[in-house]
This record gives sequence, structure tokens and C-alpha cells, in this order.
Amino acid sequence: MKIKIINPNTTWNMTLEIEKVAKKFARPDTEITAVSPDSGPVSIESMYDEALAQPGVLEEIKKGLKDGFDGFVLACFGDPALYAAREVSDIPVIGIAEAAMLMACMLGNKFSIITVLKRITPMMEEVVMKYGLKSRCASVRATDLSVLELEEDIDKTKEILLEEGRKAINEDGAEVLLLGCAGMAGLDTELEKELGVPVIDGTVAAVKFLEGIHDYGKKTSKILAFKPPEKKLIKGYPKILQP
Amino acid sequence: MKIKIINPNTTWNMTLEIEKVAKKFARPDTEITAVSPDSGPVSIESMYDEALAQPGVLEEIKKGLKDGFDGFVLACFGDPALYAAREVSDIPVIGIAEAAMLMACMLGNKFSIITVLKRITPMMEEVVMKYGLKSRCASVRATDLSVLELEEDIDKTKEILLEEGRKAINEDGAEVLLLGCAGMAGLDTELEKELGVPVIDGTVAAVKFLEGIHDYGKKTSKILAFKPPEKKLIKGYPKILQP
Amino acid sequence: MKIKIINPNTTWNMTLEIEKVAKKFARPDTEITAVSPDSGPVSIESMYDEALAQPGVLEEIKKGLKDGFDGFVLACFGDPALYAAREVSDIPVIGIAEAAMLMACMLGNKFSIITVLKRITPMMEEVVMKYGLKSRCASVRATDLSVLELEEDIDKTKEILLEEGRKAINEDGAEVLLLGCAGMAGLDTELEKELGVPVIDGTVAAVKFLEGIHDYGKKTSKILAFKPPEKKLIKGYPKILQP
Amino acid sequence: MKIKIINPNTTWNMTLEIEKVAKKFARPDTEITAVSPDSGPVSIESMYDEALAQPGVLEEIKKGLKDGFDGFVLACFGDPALYAAREVSDIPVIGIAEAAMLMACMLGNKFSIITVLKRITPMMEEVVMKYGLKSRCASVRATDLSVLELEEDIDKTKEILLEEGRKAINEDGAEVLLLGCAGMAGLDTELEKELGVPVIDGTVAAVKFLEGIHDYGKKTSKILAFKPPEKKLIKGYPKILQP
Amino acid sequence: MKIKIINPNTTWNMTLEIEKVAKKFARPDTEITAVSPDSGPVSIESMYDEALAQPGVLEEIKKGLKDGFDGFVLACFGDPALYAAREVSDIPVIGIAEAAMLMACMLGNKFSIITVLKRITPMMEEVVMKYGLKSRCASVRATDLSVLELEEDIDKTKEILLEEGRKAINEDGAEVLLLGCAGMAGLDTELEKELGVPVIDGTVAAVKFLEGIHDYGKKTSKILAFKPPEKKLIKGYPKILQP
Amino acid sequence: MKIKIINPNTTWNMTLEIEKVAKKFARPDTEITAVSPDSGPVSIESMYDEALAQPGVLEEIKKGLKDGFDGFVLACFGDPALYAAREVSDIPVIGIAEAAMLMACMLGNKFSIITVLKRITPMMEEVVMKYGLKSRCASVRATDLSVLELEEDIDKTKEILLEEGRKAINEDGAEVLLLGCAGMAGLDTELEKELGVPVIDGTVAAVKFLEGIHDYGKKTSKILAFKPPEKKLIKGYPKILQP
Repeated sequence: MKIKIINPNTTWNMTLEIEKVAKKFARPDTEITAVSPDSGPVSIESMYDEALAQPGVLEEIKKGLKDGFDGFVLACFGDPALYAAREVSDIPVIGIAEAAMLMACMLGNKFSIITVLKRITPMMEEVVMKYGLKSRCASVRATDLSVLELEEDIDKTKEILLEEGRKAINEDGAEVLLLGCAGMAGLDTELEKELGVPVIDGTVAAVKFLEGIHDYGKKTSKILAFKPPEKKLIKGYPKILQP
Repeated sequence: MKIKIINPNTTWNMTLEIEKVAKKFARPDTEITAVSPDSGPVSIESMYDEALAQPGVLEEIKKGLKDGFDGFVLACFGDPALYAAREVSDIPVIGIAEAAMLMACMLGNKFSIITVLKRITPMMEEVVMKYGLKSRCASVRATDLSVLELEEDIDKTKEILLEEGRKAINEDGAEVLLLGCAGMAGLDTELEKELGVPVIDGTVAAVKFLEGIHDYGKKTSKILAFKPPEKKLIKGYPKILQP
Repeated sequence: MKIKIINPNTTWNMTLEIEKVAKKFARPDTEITAVSPDSGPVSIESMYDEALAQPGVLEEIKKGLKDGFDGFVLACFGDPALYAAREVSDIPVIGIAEAAMLMACMLGNKFSIITVLKRITPMMEEVVMKYGLKSRCASVRATDLSVLELEEDIDKTKEILLEEGRKAINEDGAEVLLLGCAGMAGLDTELEKELGVPVIDGTVAAVKFLEGIHDYGKKTSKILAFKPPEKKLIKGYPKILQP
Repeated sequence: MKIKIINPNTTWNMTLEIEKVAKKFARPDTEITAVSPDSGPVSIESMYDEALAQPGVLEEIKKGLKDGFDGFVLACFGDPALYAAREVSDIPVIGIAEAAMLMACMLGNKFSIITVLKRITPMMEEVVMKYGLKSRCASVRATDLSVLELEEDIDKTKEILLEEGRKAINEDGAEVLLLGCAGMAGLDTELEKELGVPVIDGTVAAVKFLEGIHDYGKKTSKILAFKPPEKKLIKGYPKILQP
Repeated sequence: MKIKIINPNTTWNMTLEIEKVAKKFARPDTEITAVSPDSGPVSIESMYDEALAQPGVLEEIKKGLKDGFDGFVLACFGDPALYAAREVSDIPVIGIAEAAMLMACMLGNKFSIITVLKRITPMMEEVVMKYGLKSRCASVRATDLSVLELEEDIDKTKEILLEEGRKAINEDGAEVLLLGCAGMAGLDTELEKELGVPVIDGTVAAVKFLEGIHDYGKKTSKILAFKPPEKKLIKGYPKILQP
Repeated sequence: MKIKIINPNTTWNMTLEIEKVAKKFARPDTEITAVSPDSGPVSIESMYDEALAQPGVLEEIKKGLKDGFDGFVLACFGDPALYAAREVSDIPVIGIAEAAMLMACMLGNKFSIITVLKRITPMMEEVVMKYGLKSRCASVRATDLSVLELEEDIDKTKEILLEEGRKAINEDGAEVLLLGCAGMAGLDTELEKELGVPVIDGTVAAVKFLEGIHDYGKKTSKILAFKPPEKKLIKGYPKILQP
């Protein structure tokens, strides 16, 4: 199958890192293509950033539908534009926050999310609530590193992740940890070894779920919440984004 | 005080209607200006529409801050970009869904929302849940009219609103009804007379709340969820939208 | 408009303080009258106190209806007799706990309440739950000062409020603070300056909401929860309290 | 043991009926005394009625403590003044709504409450929520008879109760029914025979629970929510009601 | 009445201890018989243990029905097989976790459970959630002693229980404590004396509730969740366990 | 990878049917083996049946661990012994109810479960609540066919499933339907074609999730809820079931 991973921010070296990790765990017969939209913020750390990332994400979805992809991954832990993307695509679209949480539910009783800046915590909690998984979430913990700082000093990043991970386990009752930012791609294995609990990279989880859903032939339900958008003029946007 | 009402869709005759109603109930010393963004859908009836309406809304917020407004109203019942707008503005921003629900809480035990297309129901329910008001919401009911159909045959629109309103009252236990679309502006009084329960137009509620909050001198809390967005490049957007 | 503020306890110097604050923020064309009932406890710090305060509150509501008031404020943070008052009055009645919480919802994601004695904490939590706002409440914190101690050593009171406020912000995630006792009237501005977050005095919030609701012409819904009480004999109470 | 049943309304023939039923199921060594307060409404069908019933109830609690009772039952399905009564009494106080619900939890998965006037439904729902038992409550159904009408035409009353009971079972999934008014005392057996599910009279449940708690020697916890009220002047009330 | 207490584990000296405590608080006319099943683990400290304890428990229920008992107590704090037992018995069956929680609801606003190994905490939380009492539960705290260690050094056990009890009271807001393991039988009185809050042994609570329910003549509702199991072959089990 | 599917009931022709469906959707390199335990009921339609099915299920898990399987599926929609199985196995174990619900969350906003007998409805609701997915579940609907009746008249079965499916969609707001019994294996495709919404067979979902989790190298978290059971004697069970 052909999977298109959309990194909703416009930092391509992060996009390539995400692609590398996805390819590592994809099946041999799965083609992975990761892209960043033409427009949008270089990192997503606020609801403002999210709002301005969404049109670019939707454009990539529309392009991907034309290009014959079989599944989409939204690789930003806030799952920006996920439900809007499902409206325009009957091909499955999976967000990495969603995928990480759902996989965690099969491996432990409660999970914790380790995210970037503290200011993002309420956004993460809203996502957990929206998916109905509040009772499965032990905590949302912040490293207080920005998205782009994550890669600046990788040793410091790991150290802080380990520290917050240990607190999530010992103080909050977490049994599975979720990497709360696509920019943490590739750190799951090492953290898992140190901490002794499953650590999930949502990008990998989303790719594996897409492969399974594709094999099973299932598509997005189009009868209520994810009906295609009504035909209408949307001013100021290119033709491809007109419904 | 100076209030800027942003109708997130680009249908200016609806914007003018909203402005008219707002002015009717604003205090004499309140200046009301209603606008539509330059970009965005002619009506908002899906999460896709919402996603593409948000950049235009945020641009109007940014412009409004420069223009010295004292408060903003987002006049679309899904409150699109509300939390993002609060990040960029310390001046209060109020959504009409939020305002209608909160005013309803002071007038009755439970409220119902009468919205447009059935497909919007899950979006409304998500908004109710996000604000934490699920236990106060008796039901979300749909007329299954589109936003632009509302004004096509005003008598039919009223009739359907009355019918759904009666069901909300008699079957669901609603004590207050909320007009679930800014395009229903001006219908509250008539419905109220027929149905014998308070019917709230969120635009009016938002204006009155802004006036009160302004008198009291309160502003948006900027310490956690609504911190200003981090400085960064946002590709493909004009200068005014750069954080 | 004419607003009657009922301080449910019988300590008139507190009543006058509340009136002063309310007048400070009321519009010029709003008349404010604050009273204490003839009967009831000198301070309300238990459910027992609350139970014995309620008949006096209801008597003041009934008198106020005769006297042609346009709105009522119940100025005790437990909102005693609020729903009973709404049954006897179609004129809006707003409790200060309710008003403070609802205004907080428009200024921040989560609020905390700073109350008096620790024993009151469960009462406050019950009020939050009753209004359906549990997911918006970061915490209820107690100063462990009694209502009447609040004014004994005002500097100590402020110090303790600041300390609990800081904990609410840093440990609980509060973005807005609510003065959890009408006896704290007037301390909002100073605390706000020190703490850098909105601090809300429910009395002011209630007055501003009443003014807005009055302008909009809305009244209490009388069809279900707040129907007028049935005609019947109520033994041991004066004529004015007979339904 | 000596149990004092307080019927919070002032209709003594209902009080005597309640006493009769309680005595029927009490142990031989349990002394039952049922009273109505001197003050209060002849029936309780609103929050207003409830507010004016509470001082009389608390006076009976205070008298009962002097008279050496070992337990109190509040025999009105809204459990008026229950928590206030627990503050003044370390001797157990049980409300009949509470008792009926808790016994139902041991006999079935979900219960329904059959109450009197429809307007009382929101009060009942609030009581269910306050006790945390929302997930155990299938429904609250109203006969739309007033409290005093219940006894006017006993055959009609039974018929309506049967009809609502059947709907609760067949449409709402109820497995146990609760008589939602002390004035329905004595109807449990007959309804149970007809409907084939346990039907609980909260007065009996409360008496049986008090006997058990008394044997076990347990008393109300006095350390937080139910601490004794602070000493203070309560204006307009007799000496016995001063804390 | 005749009550059969089933200790779901196979450690008879614990069974005898439970019987002793039950007899101490049972009425003179109540016959208490405590047994352990023939099969099952010597202690129950995991969901695995629970699964293997259940057939033995159900066999004892079936035997008890033949032997004419009037009520059953399941004396393990996870209430294993409680709902299955209710399916096969119209005679009331009460679990000690359920009984302890429900009695606590009548004595305080919130309770805490003090259990054995930390690993059991999620099981306890699931039981609380299943009964719908999450909002009444202040915390579940673990001693990290195993069931059989409880009796090895009784002084150390008490000390740890006191320590966790104090934390539950001071840090979590507990007003009533529940002995979270049948193996703690008999420790309630002493802990209560030290801690100044009601401490409940679920076995006693269950016995007292059964006596009350028996007097009142109520039985398990058999119409939905607790219908008798369908007739069918169950391979590998003795005749008595065939439905 | 090698997957062992355990059909918790002892009806082998159902087991073979399940195996057939699983093999149809498994990858070529996945080996599927489906078994029924030696002991247990011929169908599972009550909590009693479930309790007696669990030891057999756990024995098959233990055998499977010795036989080198890489993943387990529990193919009964109540997921009996799922958490106990996770305690004894670090190899992933997935229940079909869990798998169906989690896959549904990626395809629609709300799902409904179509189950067998009405009496099973509360069990299903408990499972939904246990997994924390109550807000995602539109309804649980019953066909009122028994498990073994499902295959007796396959046309009638389909007809009833279609009817309940339509009600779930039109009345309850379901967007995805879950086959609520392993005995419905193979009916998903046909129902999906008729109803126009995704219909999920949990067995297939579980197999696909296991393949994905296996590729990713994740295992059950063993640090809290799913720690291995403590070593101890379990009377009356064969050596393989001793921890």
C-alpha cells in the first residue's frame, strides 16, 4: 500500500526523520512518502500555530487523494485537521496522537504523554478528552523544551524525557509512555530500554494501524461526522481546496 | 467600548444582519463593527469549512488589535479559532456558542441547541464537551437546513425551528433554547414568544458579556493555555499573521 | 436598572462592603441596593448555616419582587437558595459562585476557587459539580480563615490569599482565580496585580451579567426546574413567604 | 435502638403512615418515633418548599439528640437538610433517597425513581448526581401527581405508578424501582408483585440500614464535610438552633 | 436468618478469622457459616488469581442455595464472581467491597480504600468505577504487603495501615476508611480509635446489610443483568455447576 | 508471526469459522491457529458463563506461551480473562471487543455494538465503560438471538442484524457497527454493503493489530496492572495453571 505521511509543520529535516522511522517499521510492501505542506509554521506549539497549519495539511490530503495514496498519517501530536481531513477523504486518515493512545490501550492500563512546552499541556488534555480516553490517561507531562530545541542537544533531551518518564511511572501510575511530539521520532527504543515500559512513537503506530485497516479493506464512515464538505466557494484558497 | 464582531464566513449580508442585531442590544456607548474575513468559506457547515475559515478570522483579530478594539466576538456557533484568537489577544475574545451556553446556565437548568444541518451535530456536541457543559445540555437538534437556506424561506425556517424547539422542550427537557447558527440572528424574540422559554442569540449574549467584562477591566489570562504564540516563521502567510 | 444584592448572612458591615464594590463597577444608570436578611447566621461556613440562611434570603427575594427590582444577586459563594429563588422570581437571580465561574470560563481554560475554612471545600466542590463545571475547575483551595477573620488582619489575609493563589497557579494549573467568599470583596485588584492572572469577585461578575441580561430582556425559564412553587400552606412562616 | 423518623413536611397523617410502615419492618427491639416539624410546608414539591422545610428538620434533629435517639431518618425523597443534619449530629442520619438508591445497588444493576410532579425531576437528578450514582440510575420518571393527590384516589395512583414502572423497566432498563416520595409509603409490596422487580420504600431501607450501622457501632465522620457548625449567632432562630 | 460467607481464597485460617468477626457483629438470631471453596488460590492478589477463584466461589453459592441459606457474602475485596453469583441466586449476594463502599456513603462524603499490594490498585479502581462511585472515592492506597504477610507481623501491619490511613485523611480528603482486604478482619476498631474516623470492615457491613434486606424481604432483581444463566453444557465442571 | 486465537467457548465449529475469517485477512506470513479450551461453556451469554470460561482460556494462554506464539486473540466479545491473560503473558493479548472498538475510533466518531441476547447488554456496557470509551459508544443493541441460534437460520440472523444496524445508525447516531459476538464472524462484508457504514469483526481487527504491534516489537507493560501473578498454590488446578 502507499502511505502519505504529512508532517503538519514546515521543517523538512523533521519530516525526513519521521519518514526514516516510519520506513524502518513499515512492511516491505508499504511505500512511505513523507511531506511538509508548502504553508504553515516551522513548528506547532500553540493553537494559533495549529490553525495556520491546517490549510496546508488539507491541501496535502487533497493532493494525496489525486496521487492515489491508500492512507494518510498526520504526524503532529495535536492531530491538527484530523477530522476535517476525514471529511474530504474516504481513505483512512490517522493522527499520531490518536494512534499512540489507541495502541497504548492494548499494552497497558494507563498511559502518559510526554510533550514539549508546558503551554501545550491543555491542548493535549483536550485531545485526550475529545477521543474519550480521559480515564486511560495517567498524565500529560511537559519537558518544557520547544519542538526545535528537541534536536539541539539530543543528550539533554533524552535526559529530560527519562526524568519525566520516571515521574509519570512512579508518581502518576503510567504503564505506557507516548512520545508527545513527532520531533521525538526515533527516541522510543532507547527510552523503552531505560525505563522498562513500552514507549510508543505515534507515527509508527499510525503506519501499522493503516496497514492493518488497509488489509481489512475498511474506510472512513461517511454518513455523519465525516460526510464530505458541502460544495461551496471558499474565498482566497486555490482550486484544489474548493470542496 | 469598541467591539469588533468577526463573522467567520464570507457572506457579507449575513455579517450585516448580525451587526444589526448586535447594535440593537448594545449600549449606546458601545461601538459595533462587524466584518467578514477576506478569505474563507461562504458558510461554515463542516470541520473542513472551519479549518479554512480560521486563518481569515485570526487575521481579523490581528487587524482589530492594531485598530484599538476593546473586545472581539466570533459569530459562528462552532466558535472557530476561539482559543487561537485568545492566544494572540489579551483583549477578551468571546465565541457565540460559548456566550449562548453560559447565559443559558443563568436562566435555566438545561439548554438545547437548534443547529442547521444534521451533520453538524457531532461538532456541536464536541464544543459542548470542550466547554465542560455536557451535563447542562439537554440536546443538540438539527433543522437540516443549510446556513444559506435559513434565509431563503424565512417562514419555513421559523416553522422548523419552532418544531425542533418544541421537541427539545417536551422530549429532551430543555428550558432555554440557543440559536445554533449566527445566520439565525434576529429570530430569538419571535421564537421566544411562541415557545414561552428564553431563546438566546449568542451574538447578543457575547456583546453583553464583553461590555460587562470591559467595565470590570478583566482580560484574557495569558499564563498557560492562552500564552502568546512563540515567535517563528509561518510560511505562506502575510506579515500580519507572523507571531 | 435596579439590582438588589442579598448578602445571605446577617453581618451588615460586610453587606455594606459588598455594596461599595458593586457600585464601583456598576453602570451609572444601575441602582444598587445591598441588604442582609433579618434572620440567619452572622457568617455562612457550613451546610447548617446555609440551611438557616435560606428563609431570610427568600424573604428578601419576595420583598424585592414587590419593590420592583429588575435583578437579584445572592452574595455568598455557596449560592444558598439560588434555585429556590429562581422558582419564586421570573426576574433573573444570579449567585456569585455561578457568576464568578462563568466569567472565568471566558477568560481562561481552568479556574481555582480560594475559599475560607477547609471544611467548606466539599461544599464548594459540590457547587462546581452541580453547575457541571468540574472539568473547568483546577482546584478548590482553603485559606483556613473563617469568614469574619478575613477582615481582622487584612495584611495577613492578603498574604495567605497570595500564597494559596500561587499554589493554585503553579501546582494546579489555574489560569483565573475566584474569590471564594463575599467577604473578600475588594481584594481582587490587588491580588490580580501581584499574581498576573485575572482574579474575579463574583459580586461584580453577577452585577455585570445582570445588566447584560436586562438589556437583552431575558428572564428565568419557568417551565420545568424553576416553575413557581405550588400554592400551599407553609407553617411557621410569615405571609410574605406563603407561595 | 431508638430511631426518630422526621417527615420534613407538616402533614401528620402522612407522618403516621410512614411510621406504620417503618414499624412493620423494624426489629422488635427497635423503637420508632415519627414526627413532623412544627414549621414547614404541608408537602415538598419544589426547592422553595425544601428551603423552608429545612429549619424545622434541623430543630427536630437537635431535639432528637437531646432525647437520646440513636439514629435519624429524613423521610422525604429529596433528602432535605441531610448534610446539614450530619454536621450537627454524630449519630447517623440517613435520607430515604440515599437509602433507597444504595439498597437498589445491591439488588440490581440499574434503578429508576418514580416521583410525583414532573417539575421535581431535575431535583431528583441533582440528588442522584450529588451521591455520585448517575451511572446506576436508569431514569427518573414522574407520575405528575402532587404529593397530596397520591392518597386521594389510591387506585388511580397505583395504576399510574404501574404504568411508569413498566416504562422504566421496558424502555429505560430499570431492574429495581424506588418509590420517589415518602407519601407512597406502603405501595412497594403491591407494585413489586405486579411488576416482578424489587420496589423499594426508602423509609424501610433507611431504618434497616440504621439498625445495621448501630449494631456495628459506626457514627458519622466528623473530620471534614460533616464537622460540627462553628459557634456563632444565628438571628431569628430559637436557642435550640444556635450552634 | 442463615448467612453463608464465602472467602474466595483457600486459606482456612483467614476464613475462620472472618467468621469470628462476622459472628461478633451479627444479630443473635443470625447464623453465620464461613467457608473457603475447594479450589482456588491461597490468596487473591491479581486478576489471574481472581479468575481461578471464581468457579470455586460459584460452586459454594450453588451448594448454599441447596442448603437453604438466606444470604451470601463474598469476602474478598475485589468482589470476585459477584455478578455471576447474582445470576444463579435470587437470594441476595453481597460483596464486601460493595458493602464497605455503600456504608461509607452514609457516614462521610468521601472514602479511601487501603489495600494490600500496589499492583492491586488498578483492580480496586476498576471496582469503584464499576459500582459508579468514583466521585465518592478519595483514593486507593496500598500498604504493599501481600495478603498473607498481613498476619505475619501484626504490629507492623497496623503501623503501615495507620500511616496510609493518615495520608488518605490528610492528603486525599478521606473521611471514612475501608479495610481493602478480608485478611484485615478485626483491625477496624483499633484503627478507628487511633485515626478518629469510621473504619469499615466490609464483611461486617455485608452481614448487616443482608440482615436488613432479609427483614425487608427483598431479593435480587432477575429481569436483566442478573437473569439466571441459560441452560447449556459447561465442559469440565461438575454437575452442580451446570446451569 | 504465529497468532493463537482462543475462542473462549467450547463450540469447535464456531472456532473453525473464526479461524477461517482470521486467515482470510491475515498476512501471508502470519500463521493462525484457533482453538477452544478443554473446559468451559458451549456459548458465553452471561457473567456465569464467563466465569467458567476463564480458567480454560488461561490454560490455553499458558500452553500458547510454551508453544512459542507471538500473539493471542481472545475471540469472545466480552473479552473474558483478558486482563488476567495479560498478567501471565508479556506477549500481546488482544480481546475482540477491545480491538473492534479501537479500530472503530479511527473510522468514525461513534460506534454501536450489535450483540446477541438482551440480557448481555449490561455486560457490554460494562466493557465499554471499563475501556473508557463510553463517549464514543452510540448504543449497545441486542438481536435477542442466542449465540448458537445465530447460525441456525442465517438469513433471519442477517435480517435482524440489518434491522438493529439501521436503528443504531438512524436513531442512535452510530457511524461504525461492531459485530458483538464472535459467532457473527463473516457477516461484516455483507452488512457493510447493505448499510453503507464500516462493519467490524473484532477478530479481524485483533489479528491486524497484533501483526502491527509485532512488527513494532511492542509487548505488554508489566510494571503495574499486568505484573505477573505472585507465586502461590492454586488448589484444584493442573500444574500448568500454577503461577
